Amino acid sequence: MSITVKALQKTGPDQPYRVVEIERRDPRETDVVIDIKAAGICHSDIHTIRNEWGEAHFPLTVGHEIAGVVSAVGSAVTDWKVGDRVGVGCLVNSCGECEQCLAGFENNCLNGSVGTYNAKDVDGTITQGGYAQKVTVEQRFVCRIPDALSFEQAAPLLCAGITTYSPLARWGAAEKRADGSAKRVAVLGMGGLGHMGVKIAAAMGAEVTVLSRSLKKEQLAMDLGASRVLATTEDDFFTAHRGEFDLILNTISADIDVDAYLRLLTPRGVMAVVGLPPAAQSLSFASIIGGGKVLAGSNIGGIPETQEMLDFCAEHGFGAEVEVVSVDEVDAAYERVVAGEVFFRAVIDTATFEDAPVAV
Amino acid sequence: MSITVKALQKTGPDQPYRVVEIERRDPRETDVVIDIKAAGICHSDIHTIRNEWGEAHFPLTVGHEIAGVVSAVGSAVTDWKVGDRVGVGCLVNSCGECEQCLAGFENNCLNGSVGTYNAKDVDGTITQGGYAQKVTVEQRFVCRIPDALSFEQAAPLLCAGITTYSPLARWGAAEKRADGSAKRVAVLGMGGLGHMGVKIAAAMGAEVTVLSRSLKKEQLAMDLGASRVLATTEDDFFTAHRGEFDLILNTISADIDVDAYLRLLTPRGVMAVVGLPPAAQSLSFASIIGGGKVLAGSNIGGIPETQEMLDFCAEHGFGAEVEVVSVDEVDAAYERVVAGEVFFRAVIDTATFEDAPVAV
Repeated sequence: MSITVKALQKTGPDQPYRVVEIERRDPRETDVVIDIKAAGICHSDIHTIRNEWGEAHFPLTVGHEIAGVVSAVGSAVTDWKVGDRVGVGCLVNSCGECEQCLAGFENNCLNGSVGTYNAKDVDGTITQGGYAQKVTVEQRFVCRIPDALSFEQAAPLLCAGITTYSPLARWGAAEKRADGSAKRVAVLGMGGLGHMGVKIAAAMGAEVTVLSRSLKKEQLAMDLGASRVLATTEDDFFTAHRGEFDLILNTISADIDVDAYLRLLTPRGVMAVVGLPPAAQSLSFASIIGGGKVLAGSNIGGIPETQEMLDFCAEHGFGAEVEVVSVDEVDAAYERVVAGEVFFRAVIDTATFEDAPVAV
Repeated sequence: MSITVKALQKTGPDQPYRVVEIERRDPRETDVVIDIKAAGICHSDIHTIRNEWGEAHFPLTVGHEIAGVVSAVGSAVTDWKVGDRVGVGCLVNSCGECEQCLAGFENNCLNGSVGTYNAKDVDGTITQGGYAQKVTVEQRFVCRIPDALSFEQAAPLLCAGITTYSPLARWGAAEKRADGSAKRVAVLGMGGLGHMGVKIAAAMGAEVTVLSRSLKKEQLAMDLGASRVLATTEDDFFTAHRGEFDLILNTISADIDVDAYLRLLTPRGVMAVVGLPPAAQSLSFASIIGGGKVLAGSNIGGIPETQEMLDFCAEHGFGAEVEVVSVDEVDAAYERVVAGEVFFRAVIDTATFEDAPVAV
């Protein structure tokens, strides 16, 4: 038995999206079936389905920013009931037994966590993502969406939110400087990730500076909580702002002059990296030895921290800044995401599957 | 007025050491004069005086691992008295007023700390180091040497000790893993720094592995507290030990395959770097994003932490492993340090200045 649902699918990296019917498994004992209400469009979806991160398994449905309502539960599920508002992010399974899983870092599962799409599931099938009407997920990978957040606002939190929240929390954006003033956090890049970095860091109490190639998004950044925007292309940028920041959150996936950015940090400052440039970067160890600086990677977050982030956002009354698109607008939305024209996250309204004809 | 003392001096990078007389200032209000008993030979001394780290200011006396006895104090000195056993490390001054100094990180002074040798002092002169009979130092840069440590054992702690203690303490070598077992610390390189890393990490309760090109120093490493030594030149080294270490302390100053070493870390593991290779290194951000890993620099430590380290070593009953040399053996000792033949720190017995003739 299985559940037939409509989904957006590509059959190859250069093919357009089409609406098809795919099968979701009936809930196993510990599964939750979710009626998807909103699915965020993450830049990773685009990289994956365009084969920019290796060979995708076609035909494929992507999407790992999922918000919806529980529509069925397996016989052993006690934490979730039909009608619960829930979300699913980048992971749908992990071993649950290794020291990382036990510590709540399912994202670092030593036996390999299962990605929400394009990954080999525990039953050997390839996982299919959230651009669909429903999804069936192991209960441990479901988070509660607080009532204060709409599904559209909440969906991008499941990836963009936790990706920025986790390093900001780990590296002390919410703490105070020695003199009691706010931590000085710079957010490098102002896209889907960057805009969440600004909102979350500001809500944590940090003084937030956006570093961007231009001042184009200055007012938008200020509206989200930044206290200023600096253009990294200014001639004297790296000398004028030397030693200013306690923490730089690097959300861009382009090559950067790592040594130059490290000079912007205070002693013992941290550059947290969540954007992945395709090529290796050059780093002089002198740039981290002097001042005892830190270059730290971060990769989404575990499920407990994802829940903590959702609760944090709800408490502070914000979700992602979104633009809602219908199922027939996704290819066009991809172009605008790549062009940096979406402020700041496109989210698919899955109610628009209803009237969409199934491709034959 | 000044104090005339014998010192080892070079007049150029290729000149031999000669014993000369140099002047130490009479103690200013907050100064301490130290009768030097032992002076460690740090690899930095060699780099500096051979012009490998830029142009040295000749004629020059180096040495920043100084242990001795207070022989005079300035009129405003209250914390130190004649006869106290004390040490001086890599720094002899800093502004004392910036947020870093106030937080005890004089090594990160925002207005520039003053190095113990080859640095511009507050009076405009070039500082002269510890290969000498006496030194005059601002009292804030003096540490107490516990009675449990001999001067010879203690001298190298002022640089090699704090350089390894600080990152080991900062990155949790003394903490336990989630399952209550000891942290797994790898020390890369087994020279002056590395041997202190092994001793300190073992005393902190970590399970210590030495990573070295060969197994030549295996027994020596085990004697210092390591539980094993691994040869990094083994064919399957990087695959066989993938994900094994919570913390890698990199003490070597040669180029390394940074990405390969990062694969040896557990998720959220840290590679702390204290050795400075001359060239920039290559780093793929994927190597730190996956598993949320950390690449952290470290540069000696502040004065409070240096005192903490001295007390820690005394409590645990160890200093550096040293080979004592006389003032006429220093050039020869340099050759043996560079060849890796000193186990593990050469220390100058400054009593041998007594009978050394002054060069004319």
